[in-house]
Amino acid sequence: MSADIVLLATVSFISACQQAYFAKLVGKYRMKHKVNPPAVTGPPEFERAFRAQQNCVEFSAIFLVDLWAAGWFFNQGLAAVFGLVYIYGRHLYFHGYVESAKGRLPGFSLCKLSLVCLLVMASAGLSNSLLDKYCDINLISRLQRLIFG
Amino acid sequence: MSADIVLLATVSFISACQQAYFAKLVGKYRMKHKVNPPAVTGPPEFERAFRAQQNCVEFSAIFLVDLWAAGWFFNQGLAAVFGLVYIYGRHLYFHGYVESAKGRLPGFSLCKLSLVCLLVMASAGLSNSLLDKYCDINLISRLQRLIFG
Amino acid sequence: MSADIVLLATVSFISACQQAYFAKLVGKYRMKHKVNPPAVTGPPEFERAFRAQQNCVEFSAIFLVDLWAAGWFFNQGLAAVFGLVYIYGRHLYFHGYVESAKGRLPGFSLCKLSLVCLLVMASAGLSNSLLDKYCDINLISRLQRLIFG
Repeated sequence: MSADIVLLATVSFISACQQAYFAKLVGKYRMKHKVNPPAVTGPPEFERAFRAQQNCVEFSAIFLVDLWAAGWFFNQGLAAVFGLVYIYGRHLYFHGYVESAKGRLPGFSLCKLSLVCLLVMASAGLSNSLLDKYCDINLISRLQRLIFG
Repeated sequence: MSADIVLLATVSFISACQQAYFAKLVGKYRMKHKVNPPAVTGPPEFERAFRAQQNCVEFSAIFLVDLWAAGWFFNQGLAAVFGLVYIYGRHLYFHGYVESAKGRLPGFSLCKLSLVCLLVMASAGLSNSLLDKYCDINLISRLQRLIFG
Repeated sequence: MSADIVLLATVSFISACQQAYFAKLVGKYRMKHKVNPPAVTGPPEFERAFRAQQNCVEFSAIFLVDLWAAGWFFNQGLAAVFGLVYIYGRHLYFHGYVESAKGRLPGFSLCKLSLVCLLVMASAGLSNSLLDKYCDINLISRLQRLIFG
């Protein structure tokens, strides 16, 4: 556990900026295709852009919780790296999805992969903290003793 | 106020996993009913599953803020318990909603109840902290003196 | 950086309550116009209210991350003030949008303005912390020395 959170905060902030940027792009596609609010249906290109943004929103809470749990309870640097991979995956996802429905898949796979890595790190870190606090078992230090003698 | 946040982090993490699971289920209903992205309309079962997931997303920021405010400023253990009740409520809600529109109601009532409890705890804790900081009045310690003499 | 977070938590909590209130209002418009779940299309007034709530949800993660990054790494009081401006902007936005699609614009501009202010504060604070940590350069204290001698 560490009081130092500047890397996690920076990655979260970059992700927030990316989401604001996606919202802006959807607004541009609205104007391009003359889809007046509150409508969310229209030409396929607009619907794909809108759906891409919605999917990012659906996963934003999942991403932030996984990122912070992994970074706080496991390793901040590693969590930040996977966070950046996730953000890059979202970039590929959004722009691929706007091109075609199939185009979303490479980016989505990258996002899923980085989320799974964060999830594994978060599970390990949280389990270790819970065992340490409530059962007085510190797995990570036992492992280190086992490996490094 | 406490630096120890492992219970709140664990409950948030379980909730994030649940949301990822719901997203996966919606993907399965997409394939079952052959609803190709970016479409979000289709057979009633798919639309109910999709709407159930969307409702969970709409409340995820509300839930996380209430959970952490209640746990940080009032009582972590109690907040974690109501957080778990909320997650169980969401489980009932999602699977009930997929069955029928009426089926969402029992789970939703449980979610609302636990959110109200978290909200009351958060209000009490935040009011106490604000009064303590800016007016030098610590209601909780006064109450304790009143009750325990 | 400060361990004291009561203002940021209070603003986040007010924003969560506002979102819960918007969700409740959309439920009322559902009943008024007899739009049965899971449908999300219906009379224009309902669709505008629903879309207004959705837009608030889309921005909630962006808002919370910007608010906390600005408050933690730059200045808590200032971030809280802009957070309250954002919440007031969302109030104008929602009720304006329910009236007419054009009615959303004044509130939305106010939200955008306060988000940009939070974003600038967050960027400045995070850059300063990163430079301080990894390059041993503390811009803010240099600036203060430059100004105050």
